[in-house]
Amino acid sequence: MMEKVKVGIVGLGRLGRRHAENLAFRIPNCELLAVCSVNAEEVEQVQHDWNIKYGYTDFDRMLENKELDAIFISSPSGFHCEQIQKALNAGFHVFCEKPLGLYLEEALLVQEVVRKHKDKVFMIGFMRRYDKSYAYAKKKIEEGKIGEPILIRCYSLDPAKAIRGFMQFAKSNYSGGLFLDMAIHDLDLARWYLGAEAKQVWAVGGAYAHPEFRELNDAETGAVLVKFENDKIGIFVAGRNCAHGYHIETEIIGTKGTLRIGTIPEKNMVTVFDENGAIKECSDGFLERFEQAYLSEAEEFISCIRENRQPKVTVEDGVISTALGYACKKSFETGELVNVESLMNTVASS
Amino acid sequence: MMEKVKVGIVGLGRLGRRHAENLAFRIPNCELLAVCSVNAEEVEQVQHDWNIKYGYTDFDRMLENKELDAIFISSPSGFHCEQIQKALNAGFHVFCEKPLGLYLEEALLVQEVVRKHKDKVFMIGFMRRYDKSYAYAKKKIEEGKIGEPILIRCYSLDPAKAIRGFMQFAKSNYSGGLFLDMAIHDLDLARWYLGAEAKQVWAVGGAYAHPEFRELNDAETGAVLVKFENDKIGIFVAGRNCAHGYHIETEIIGTKGTLRIGTIPEKNMVTVFDENGAIKECSDGFLERFEQAYLSEAEEFISCIRENRQPKVTVEDGVISTALGYACKKSFETGELVNVESLMNTVASS
Amino acid sequence: MMEKVKVGIVGLGRLGRRHAENLAFRIPNCELLAVCSVNAEEVEQVQHDWNIKYGYTDFDRMLENKELDAIFISSPSGFHCEQIQKALNAGFHVFCEKPLGLYLEEALLVQEVVRKHKDKVFMIGFMRRYDKSYAYAKKKIEEGKIGEPILIRCYSLDPAKAIRGFMQFAKSNYSGGLFLDMAIHDLDLARWYLGAEAKQVWAVGGAYAHPEFRELNDAETGAVLVKFENDKIGIFVAGRNCAHGYHIETEIIGTKGTLRIGTIPEKNMVTVFDENGAIKECSDGFLERFEQAYLSEAEEFISCIRENRQPKVTVEDGVISTALGYACKKSFETGELVNVESLMNTVASS
Amino acid sequence: MMEKVKVGIVGLGRLGRRHAENLAFRIPNCELLAVCSVNAEEVEQVQHDWNIKYGYTDFDRMLENKELDAIFISSPSGFHCEQIQKALNAGFHVFCEKPLGLYLEEALLVQEVVRKHKDKVFMIGFMRRYDKSYAYAKKKIEEGKIGEPILIRCYSLDPAKAIRGFMQFAKSNYSGGLFLDMAIHDLDLARWYLGAEAKQVWAVGGAYAHPEFRELNDAETGAVLVKFENDKIGIFVAGRNCAHGYHIETEIIGTKGTLRIGTIPEKNMVTVFDENGAIKECSDGFLERFEQAYLSEAEEFISCIRENRQPKVTVEDGVISTALGYACKKSFETGELVNVESLMNTVASS
Repeated sequence: MMEKVKVGIVGLGRLGRRHAENLAFRIPNCELLAVCSVNAEEVEQVQHDWNIKYGYTDFDRMLENKELDAIFISSPSGFHCEQIQKALNAGFHVFCEKPLGLYLEEALLVQEVVRKHKDKVFMIGFMRRYDKSYAYAKKKIEEGKIGEPILIRCYSLDPAKAIRGFMQFAKSNYSGGLFLDMAIHDLDLARWYLGAEAKQVWAVGGAYAHPEFRELNDAETGAVLVKFENDKIGIFVAGRNCAHGYHIETEIIGTKGTLRIGTIPEKNMVTVFDENGAIKECSDGFLERFEQAYLSEAEEFISCIRENRQPKVTVEDGVISTALGYACKKSFETGELVNVESLMNTVASS
Repeated sequence: MMEKVKVGIVGLGRLGRRHAENLAFRIPNCELLAVCSVNAEEVEQVQHDWNIKYGYTDFDRMLENKELDAIFISSPSGFHCEQIQKALNAGFHVFCEKPLGLYLEEALLVQEVVRKHKDKVFMIGFMRRYDKSYAYAKKKIEEGKIGEPILIRCYSLDPAKAIRGFMQFAKSNYSGGLFLDMAIHDLDLARWYLGAEAKQVWAVGGAYAHPEFRELNDAETGAVLVKFENDKIGIFVAGRNCAHGYHIETEIIGTKGTLRIGTIPEKNMVTVFDENGAIKECSDGFLERFEQAYLSEAEEFISCIRENRQPKVTVEDGVISTALGYACKKSFETGELVNVESLMNTVASS
Repeated sequence: MMEKVKVGIVGLGRLGRRHAENLAFRIPNCELLAVCSVNAEEVEQVQHDWNIKYGYTDFDRMLENKELDAIFISSPSGFHCEQIQKALNAGFHVFCEKPLGLYLEEALLVQEVVRKHKDKVFMIGFMRRYDKSYAYAKKKIEEGKIGEPILIRCYSLDPAKAIRGFMQFAKSNYSGGLFLDMAIHDLDLARWYLGAEAKQVWAVGGAYAHPEFRELNDAETGAVLVKFENDKIGIFVAGRNCAHGYHIETEIIGTKGTLRIGTIPEKNMVTVFDENGAIKECSDGFLERFEQAYLSEAEEFISCIRENRQPKVTVEDGVISTALGYACKKSFETGELVNVESLMNTVASS
Repeated sequence: MMEKVKVGIVGLGRLGRRHAENLAFRIPNCELLAVCSVNAEEVEQVQHDWNIKYGYTDFDRMLENKELDAIFISSPSGFHCEQIQKALNAGFHVFCEKPLGLYLEEALLVQEVVRKHKDKVFMIGFMRRYDKSYAYAKKKIEEGKIGEPILIRCYSLDPAKAIRGFMQFAKSNYSGGLFLDMAIHDLDLARWYLGAEAKQVWAVGGAYAHPEFRELNDAETGAVLVKFENDKIGIFVAGRNCAHGYHIETEIIGTKGTLRIGTIPEKNMVTVFDENGAIKECSDGFLERFEQAYLSEAEEFISCIRENRQPKVTVEDGVISTALGYACKKSFETGELVNVESLMNTVASS
């Protein structure tokens, strides 16, 4: 077993910096050896603060560093597809944040390159599967606690206070839209918990408090109903204007019981009683809510490398969730029922 | 103002008996003067126990009793349409349990007769509007607490322990099916809270633990996504197999906040801590959950008669919710998106 | 069985008026025939609004009305002892709000007269025992759900917004102080749930936000630790300055489990989500929180009369809780441990 | 700033091993260089599994290792006092689990040696102060959210399923008893949140399900009422027989609001709905509940060393909490009110 896995990370934005800090200090048997960002100042700062040996502003140069074992990709989504391809082809294990790419075609390209490098660990950042509560729910389902899961309901609502920032970002960057960008984690969870694939989707949404979303051809808030195999049901609500914070909630109804994760998206274990009543303050964002999950997924990535095995979440999970996200987006745009399989076939044959 | 409103009730089943008891003992300025049921023994029993003056096994005979001011209809759904017509035409004020009829055509007949008797109070039993928590939510919305309501999610899940009884009933009686029988309360709430009408629906459902539902051409559990005017969104889940009890939950998301009613369908204010954890026991049925609402709606009915005014819930609310229920049913049966307006038009013109 | 129990009520304050309304309209087999208050206007108003046959401003005159079967006492606490004595001696069944009197000696006088009139129903207004959640907890304990109950914790906190009103009242009326006035319901509950009598008490308290309490020789907020028989434990917190509302909470810890009633003193089943978080609004006072309990205790009183039996809550329960309240008060005033039995003996022998 | 703080740990029991793993892998700028335990096998196992350079079965030998900067003491409580003295005198920074010693005299000895070595970082393991929820509550109080804190209620209940193990341990080892062993964390929290010192205590307790506690002269479950300066109130419940798990709950009532931490001691964010109702599973022990706190306190210890400052929690906090624990124990044993100051004076002058 190699002593420590040596990692280089690309992308030092909010989430990238968190990943970098985890890799540098909190992951057993891991060493953060290199950081890369187009922003030179950022690179220097991180190198200095955390005593990181190598710094790069050019991703290709980082790939030339043969001390590295693995590349951790946390750059903007538009770079994912290309960087995954390059890193795998250069012989590195790769972790990449979701999504695999901005277009379904990119996701399929990633799938192709991953399948070519079966000796390398590849992991997509569906961190929710590594959140303690989500993992606990999975265990309960596997133990038969709720019988056969038949319906899943997922909420992914970004805090209203972040909407100005998002609007500015979205006006100059293509994010994929609400269903691809926000709902993709839930689409992955649905497949994971239900153990079934989607067949048809219908999406509804709009711009309510913020009409600018209409100009972006995107929804501020939206909902999707999905028919899965065996008549299983998926209900997905995504939005960018949640007054009380970052609301991530998942419910799985089975033939014998129900599980809910995060019904109240509690910030912590404190209840505040004041003249308003009894208040549970809520999560203010993904870094707070999924702090432990980001750590655990990185731990799993490093363990996979050291133990020469693949994580349970696969590139196919990434591709199929992307396809489903596309189906939602298409349904929202056309107002029609969309058949997921035919969409997949269209892409596959193109 | 008349001293006491004198009421005759038809139907002495579980809910009918509750209504009768309320009318007999707990409604200010009301006197239960007559009870009617096809079951003579039931009639005698109730007359004796509660000291009720008149008993009938024939509805038409009760209508001949001119001491009565009002008729309370709690008979099986198949009788509603005819009994409403007869009672109104005989000059009585009428309260009728939902639905107005088993078919949309019946609902339209009721609408017609009600419109002919504008001097009589007519009220449909959408009791949830009179539940304290639901009424409180309405007040909050009217005060602008959550901004503009844009999405509603409603659960109506009957307890699993009642499913055997339901199956036996359903095999010999047409109930209207899951969406008309169960979801209709929610469809009414959606219109009430959103202040908008439905345009399109897509329903998905199945028979999961109980394949017999397939033979009945009905769903054991189902979900509907509804597009309302102004892109408002409705999500409805109904079912007959809820392990933990009678789960009635409603959520209204607005542009500035969210309201949830009954997130945990708590039986009472007790939390039990045992080796399983901290347990909130759940409601075991509609009589327990809506005890206060059944009282309050009857109080409102009696007050309307005494004060010579109509309740806020109208026959049109009953008709439109029935139409929406039909649209859900049709979508479930065909698997297609259903346009609500065109369905309404079809019926109206037929 | 008499047809309807005819009741006269004395006291038409906030709670008295609620009782009167219940007796007039919502209690099976009960008729409110007479109302009495020193305030003539109040009497006329109620007579007119609710169509009550007799009105009195003099309690003794009401007792001369032989149409009446029972007297319901909801006057200020200082009148309880005398009015109970008079009403029982005049041959009526009697319901009296807690406390039995302002002093332990008065409670003992009441006990004496009640014991002399065993053929009359006497009931003290420990309404919490009739609250659904409290009754449910009792049932759970009797079923052995939590094993042997060993510790009880009770909170009785009045809303801060009512404190100004209380201060004005307290400056001109002797209320008995925090422990006798507020905690007495909890002291009764403790004996009821633990099935044991108190032996020693130590009370601590103070005037924190409102130093005026010091002048009244009373505590704004206080806590008592009670050692019961068999080393069972009682913890009582009472106060008049609860920011979030009317907080009534009770916890019973047993050898095999725990029950909590009203951990969050929820106003209703609505959760409000806004920029503060997820908010459960709280009860605003006893009329809201114990609406059902006030009804049910009155129903029980009327049923006892009609069925010729005594309620489970006895005059002795009232006396012992008063003695315990006195012990708390004495401990608070002296700062010392107080032995409850010796206090009882002192009084009994005096 | 030194590059990495090199730590040696003594004690590899359940908590010791957790500390060791954290120090080895999850604390920035920390290196676990040595492990020590009287159990040679344990030492070898840990050295091998985590690749730890030095292993010792003799504490004194570890202190001779001059590569080390700091000693982390997680041995049985009976060794704390001596090991702290030796480690500080040998020139190391010291972290020690609570308590400082088994007797108040030992705590005072520790205080003396710590005061002699002001250039060394000394930290006691009151980890709750570093738990996110507890720290958040402190912040809220400092911001004035609840006004002046006037009452604290603390529960520390060990899970019933651990009681057999505890009994076996307790029969052969003196643990200090319920109040010193369990309640000491709460006594520290009370001083921290209230900003006041205790004056008088009264403790009550007993052996309910497990009479063996009586033989140990200890309480299975107990409660303490504490009068603090300015009439502030402390209520403490500790126990070893909690059916639902590890119940750590703290409430701080202020003049303007209330905070509760861990009202339901939730295991995670999952709610399970089954035929029992809606269930929140509970923490199963301190390692689960305080996982993050154990990490954060160790991070703080390492940061203090690197930044040449002392932690906010002081040796005096340890001493005073121990004194308070003694007062509780004495009150429980004598049944009397105990004056805390006079107890402190007795010890100080002895």
